[in-house]
Amino acid sequence: MQSQKAAKQSDEQAISQMVDMWLAASKEGDIETILNLMADDVLFITPGREPFGKETFASNNQQMKDVEMDADIDIKEIEVLGDWAWMRSFLRVTFTKAGESTKHSGHILTILTKRPDGQWIIKRDANFVAPEH
Amino acid sequence: MQSQKAAKQSDEQAISQMVDMWLAASKEGDIETILNLMADDVLFITPGREPFGKETFASNNQQMKDVEMDADIDIKEIEVLGDWAWMRSFLRVTFTKAGESTKHSGHILTILTKRPDGQWIIKRDANFVAPEH
Repeated sequence: MQSQKAAKQSDEQAISQMVDMWLAASKEGDIETILNLMADDVLFITPGREPFGKETFASNNQQMKDVEMDADIDIKEIEVLGDWAWMRSFLRVTFTKAGESTKHSGHILTILTKRPDGQWIIKRDANFVAPEH
Repeated sequence: MQSQKAAKQSDEQAISQMVDMWLAASKEGDIETILNLMADDVLFITPGREPFGKETFASNNQQMKDVEMDADIDIKEIEVLGDWAWMRSFLRVTFTKAGESTKHSGHILTILTKRPDGQWIIKRDANFVAPEH
């Protein structure tokens, strides 16, 4: 039987792999994979607008179809609490459209939950990513 | 014995009371009470600056000594997970200095933890409160 500590470590690894999968899918424009990594009632909380869910995320993504993105995340901490977890991270993203690049970055505080099939998914995401000055 | 549901409800109530206590102490400038409601390693994540902890919170507060504040919070959801919880809320604050008032508001995603003495305290706080336009 797995010890509690080993279970926590394996959950932290699974969360870190989920984040890698999310970023790889973002880079490839694979919206189906991304939508599968969030809860149906997910909420993204971002500066200057009302929190939004899965549908708005998908339509934002659709508008970014011809924008290339490359992202790099620094996971600062993960705390696993059974089938829940929270994570603090720092994300840098470069968007490129028609040869023009813009850099965005910011801190993120994420609430995650483990789906019955064992997959960790995003439940709430407080995302301070904004254009760099 | 308390049922699990009743225990959750009583934790939700205790968190809501903690938030009321925090806001009342903020209004009264009672920084000691506020500092006692956060973890020693608390981090506040806010737009446009690096996450900061207890000491910076206290020194920011010191600089606001002659500013009156009145705040009103709308708790949107609380999820209790044993000795951890997360909360989503919307805060409106009015700051008044020398008769001039400014209104700030924004969404907040908070991670809380229950101290061994039973008091819920703030562990991480992603705070989008900004001046209203």
